[in-house]
Amino acid sequence: MRPSGRQLGDLRPVSIETGVMKHAEGSCLIRMGETHVLCSATIEDKPPSFLKNSGLGWVTAEYGMLPRATNSRNRREAAVGKQSGRTQEIQRLIGRALRAGVDRSALGERQIVIDCDVLQADGGTRCASITGGWVALRLAVNKLLASGQIVSDPILDHVAAVSCGIYAGQSVLDLDYAEDSTAGTDGNFILTGRGKLIEVQMSAEGSTFSRDQMVELLDLAEAGCASLIAAQKAALGQ
Amino acid sequence: MRPSGRQLGDLRPVSIETGVMKHAEGSCLIRMGETHVLCSATIEDKPPSFLKNSGLGWVTAEYGMLPRATNSRNRREAAVGKQSGRTQEIQRLIGRALRAGVDRSALGERQIVIDCDVLQADGGTRCASITGGWVALRLAVNKLLASGQIVSDPILDHVAAVSCGIYAGQSVLDLDYAEDSTAGTDGNFILTGRGKLIEVQMSAEGSTFSRDQMVELLDLAEAGCASLIAAQKAALGQ
Amino acid sequence: MRPSGRQLGDLRPVSIETGVMKHAEGSCLIRMGETHVLCSATIEDKPPSFLKNSGLGWVTAEYGMLPRATNSRNRREAAVGKQSGRTQEIQRLIGRALRAGVDRSALGERQIVIDCDVLQADGGTRCASITGGWVALRLAVNKLLASGQIVSDPILDHVAAVSCGIYAGQSVLDLDYAEDSTAGTDGNFILTGRGKLIEVQMSAEGSTFSRDQMVELLDLAEAGCASLIAAQKAALGQ
Amino acid sequence: MRPSGRQLGDLRPVSIETGVMKHAEGSCLIRMGETHVLCSATIEDKPPSFLKNSGLGWVTAEYGMLPRATNSRNRREAAVGKQSGRTQEIQRLIGRALRAGVDRSALGERQIVIDCDVLQADGGTRCASITGGWVALRLAVNKLLASGQIVSDPILDHVAAVSCGIYAGQSVLDLDYAEDSTAGTDGNFILTGRGKLIEVQMSAEGSTFSRDQMVELLDLAEAGCASLIAAQKAALGQ
Amino acid sequence: MRPSGRQLGDLRPVSIETGVMKHAEGSCLIRMGETHVLCSATIEDKPPSFLKNSGLGWVTAEYGMLPRATNSRNRREAAVGKQSGRTQEIQRLIGRALRAGVDRSALGERQIVIDCDVLQADGGTRCASITGGWVALRLAVNKLLASGQIVSDPILDHVAAVSCGIYAGQSVLDLDYAEDSTAGTDGNFILTGRGKLIEVQMSAEGSTFSRDQMVELLDLAEAGCASLIAAQKAALGQ
Amino acid sequence: MRPSGRQLGDLRPVSIETGVMKHAEGSCLIRMGETHVLCSATIEDKPPSFLKNSGLGWVTAEYGMLPRATNSRNRREAAVGKQSGRTQEIQRLIGRALRAGVDRSALGERQIVIDCDVLQADGGTRCASITGGWVALRLAVNKLLASGQIVSDPILDHVAAVSCGIYAGQSVLDLDYAEDSTAGTDGNFILTGRGKLIEVQMSAEGSTFSRDQMVELLDLAEAGCASLIAAQKAALGQ
Repeated sequence: MRPSGRQLGDLRPVSIETGVMKHAEGSCLIRMGETHVLCSATIEDKPPSFLKNSGLGWVTAEYGMLPRATNSRNRREAAVGKQSGRTQEIQRLIGRALRAGVDRSALGERQIVIDCDVLQADGGTRCASITGGWVALRLAVNKLLASGQIVSDPILDHVAAVSCGIYAGQSVLDLDYAEDSTAGTDGNFILTGRGKLIEVQMSAEGSTFSRDQMVELLDLAEAGCASLIAAQKAALGQ
Repeated sequence: MRPSGRQLGDLRPVSIETGVMKHAEGSCLIRMGETHVLCSATIEDKPPSFLKNSGLGWVTAEYGMLPRATNSRNRREAAVGKQSGRTQEIQRLIGRALRAGVDRSALGERQIVIDCDVLQADGGTRCASITGGWVALRLAVNKLLASGQIVSDPILDHVAAVSCGIYAGQSVLDLDYAEDSTAGTDGNFILTGRGKLIEVQMSAEGSTFSRDQMVELLDLAEAGCASLIAAQKAALGQ
Repeated sequence: MRPSGRQLGDLRPVSIETGVMKHAEGSCLIRMGETHVLCSATIEDKPPSFLKNSGLGWVTAEYGMLPRATNSRNRREAAVGKQSGRTQEIQRLIGRALRAGVDRSALGERQIVIDCDVLQADGGTRCASITGGWVALRLAVNKLLASGQIVSDPILDHVAAVSCGIYAGQSVLDLDYAEDSTAGTDGNFILTGRGKLIEVQMSAEGSTFSRDQMVELLDLAEAGCASLIAAQKAALGQ
Repeated sequence: MRPSGRQLGDLRPVSIETGVMKHAEGSCLIRMGETHVLCSATIEDKPPSFLKNSGLGWVTAEYGMLPRATNSRNRREAAVGKQSGRTQEIQRLIGRALRAGVDRSALGERQIVIDCDVLQADGGTRCASITGGWVALRLAVNKLLASGQIVSDPILDHVAAVSCGIYAGQSVLDLDYAEDSTAGTDGNFILTGRGKLIEVQMSAEGSTFSRDQMVELLDLAEAGCASLIAAQKAALGQ
Repeated sequence: MRPSGRQLGDLRPVSIETGVMKHAEGSCLIRMGETHVLCSATIEDKPPSFLKNSGLGWVTAEYGMLPRATNSRNRREAAVGKQSGRTQEIQRLIGRALRAGVDRSALGERQIVIDCDVLQADGGTRCASITGGWVALRLAVNKLLASGQIVSDPILDHVAAVSCGIYAGQSVLDLDYAEDSTAGTDGNFILTGRGKLIEVQMSAEGSTFSRDQMVELLDLAEAGCASLIAAQKAALGQ
Repeated sequence: MRPSGRQLGDLRPVSIETGVMKHAEGSCLIRMGETHVLCSATIEDKPPSFLKNSGLGWVTAEYGMLPRATNSRNRREAAVGKQSGRTQEIQRLIGRALRAGVDRSALGERQIVIDCDVLQADGGTRCASITGGWVALRLAVNKLLASGQIVSDPILDHVAAVSCGIYAGQSVLDLDYAEDSTAGTDGNFILTGRGKLIEVQMSAEGSTFSRDQMVELLDLAEAGCASLIAAQKAALGQ
């Protein structure tokens, strides 16, 4: 039995509220149960310097967590003076995932920065950031299309992410913190709207897993991402 | 005429929603018009080291702003690797203001950390942080009292803050960004529930002001803080 | 009775010695009692980048304190690897104050950097930095005028600063360290030669103050700044 | 055809030379083709502070690359003043992988630090670091066993890692830099001596991959790791 | 002919004024021509941690330069966020030199920190710092002896330093900036009161020097340090 | 008797292996007994900015040490976040020494960066870095000459370095760690192929030395550097 009472293949309740930050070119607040992430997209006129005169655009992401998003307070990274290895790893992952769903040539020489700030954490913040970050990206690109700044849609497909893991010996979908902190194996799966894989990260600390378990988790992830993509569509009124 | 259509002595619509962060000992989301600040209070069992064995407690604050809280994106301070001078100045001010309303001896050897994170900015974020931060502090102290960890209430009085300034030659209350960015003189006033002053900061860049204007702004601030304290009481169900 | 034996409205002995740094475009050593600050002005041909092609100049300030300027040694900020929040707050204040007395259009696209280094501290270092910094600025601008690099004087008026506070229940002028460290309320007032206000900062940690006290301190500050401006004139041979 | 002329399932020539650093408790130089990594193990008497009085030990890793290990010179991280996100991600991965093969209770309250320094890079440095790092770890643990400091072997199994990817549309094993820099999908697989999985990381930037490709790469990785583990055994004279 | 008109073996005018910083346990302002360095000594009750329970004391030094001590303004190291390599090299040299003249066992488990801050620079600041730093150290130790905190004098001998170099083909003593910036070879010599050597640093950038020149410079340095030690004695009233 | 059994004037066995880093324009592994340093030279098309349009080139050096190059592990400087004062001092010395042997005008507007990374340390790492760094520099310059990018050889002479010191009262050549850590006086001598001096650094911590000892060490150094230069020639096949 899962701590939350969910079935093995159940997602937590998902809600995606768009247009929550008045200054951003795109924004949403995504809630996966008690995990709440505020995502915004900022359009910058110039690409990063390594893409100057390449004809290509860039999508990048930054990730942060409010100090008291978690059960005990974390030190504020701005006060510490650097982003932790974990933070950097997560924001590199978000950026890589979103870029995989974008035609950077169609985007043209500009950059879209996705900020994902965790207001409250209960496991799965990186996956929620990707799923919500894609919605913010979609909205910002819609603005570029509407204003005629770009003519063909650079977004190739939806991108969504979900965690799966082996909890108490069973494969479960969308781990919350109570599960995540004790799971033997824990993975993040990033998929497209067409069900193709963008990134798979499975990791075992102090234990190992088998090929069969890997496939089982992938099955859960495919179903989970399909639901998340439906939620993205609903939020966007598609 | 003010850009927002408000009268000279009008506050923006104020709302204070409590209990918005499930992990924090106290929290609220304060909105002053389009300025939105999430405030949380964390109770730590130990005071800072300089107060060890002093019998006294401490209240401190940290301040942050989401990169896209503003019209154009600001660089994330955690990524830059340090808090700006402005951020440090503001968080020192918040901490000083809240401590002025606390009997640190009654608080005992513990620390309460107030985190103020600006989700959306439209002027007056430091004042909103103080007014909202006090509500979070009040809720956290209530928990300490309810659990019997402390016996006499260390909170001496309400603390609230408001900005005033000289905009287009006239003294106005609670400047929004449109006003703040062009005001000749601009001040922050921090007052108690009994109308006593905790801090006055008036500043003119590229212009000067007179004694009379100083008094005029103080009049506006007294009225404004009284309204904010009423909002604090309402939010706390007093 | 004040620790130094001064009357409530007495400044400490003030001396301003000019031309003390042979390389600087303007310099002075200001002594307010046992507080000694070395101030220099450096003229830079270019304004900061945000003013490029604006036709406007800039005045900025940096503040430092020798490690053993104080009773117990402070860690050297260069060795710590960053300027403290207090240092940043002070240098921002000095720059803002001096800019308020300058016509940045008449100054033209250049920058003047005022360095204020405290050789010995006994309270009131930020105020001494402003009063002395203005003298260094005046001397540097005189050089620009003498050489014909600028034609109309960009300096609008004298700028001077003094601290006042409530010590042992009484309003006193120009607090020394013995007073400052125990004062209930403590303020800094920056005024022009014509007696207009540039900045007022009053602050109470662990106590509060009234409107009447605020006005009392302002009265002291007006008299104090008038004396300081007379000292500036004398130092400059006006 | 692969740039190196290798077959799809071929590893590069592997060599593992032990005992190359006279001061370290364990060390080896691992060469996978032109990728050369110097690995050392240091035994520390105390575990990290979060494990004090837990009865558990810790294995951690640090990763570095000489500035001219690569085709064009990289800035020295010590001179830049921080480790890049990539470096931190890699050293976290190495540590996590090695810990998965260790019984931390049998290790007892001590820490083993694995340093992996890339002398020359031609793709696959993180995998070589894990495979070589395990050999250094094994040698250091042997010393602890030989001296009687620990009595039961805390090493549960071999740990080895290899990269696989989709290059020019085909699944290939052990990518060198020429392949890695153009591969559509690229993954790292960490396995034990018994063929269990410790970590799988598959990533596509600007493209996607299918379930079938994921399984194909896993097949290659299983064969590759088996060969690497044979090389570890040979190097250790088992 | 030297730019200053001095003879080859002439020092610049030297003055050492003691007791210039009221808070420090020892202090002096040393002037060697237009090079002015403020030196202070701070006594700390504890030695650095690596000497705990060793019975030995420590003498260390920190060095700084005001931003406008030089002809063009240098960036403030505290603002840059680190001490330059040059600064660190100099302060390590000062500390090493002063320790060579101290019996650390007689000093006992305490630390004396020498701060050397260059108010104005015209070449030779590191040598002036050593010569002046020794005076500050002597005064602080006198205090420890006077108060009975230590009983036998830990100072073994005077320590003084002077630069010499090859300027325009000739060996000259005590280079000023005009000479230093064009000298082919340039050295710093640190000697004791008895004429023994503590440190010799000779360096040629873009040229070389011979054994004979090395000996010639040493001759000049011996005479120069003897004069400096006489000046130390005079300043101390010996 | 020396710990290693060497005679007073004996170098340790020296070996210089060239071409050890396939990406670098020049490289060698220099071994002086158990001190092993990997040296590489990187040619950069542009000089540092302060030499733009000067017609002059630059040679600079960076120095590092693997964490476990030494008997106990040192913290990785990249992880600490800055290079130590010792590291900076050493790399400044290496750069200065190599530049003294180069005609920067013949080199033209480019920069050569010498990286010296200590794989294993047993005393004398800075001297080995200079001797080996010069070989890497020579090889890189040979490439520039071979390709016709420069026409006249900018290398004026060999540069080599050796340490000498007073160990157990006797002057010895090429100190190893066992000697270095207890030597009263310790020096580094950098000489050219023609026997001219580039840099002399002699230092005594807690003791002093005489003129005669200085000359004795210089005699040893001249003989030692002559042998090292012979080893450089042999390694280069001259």
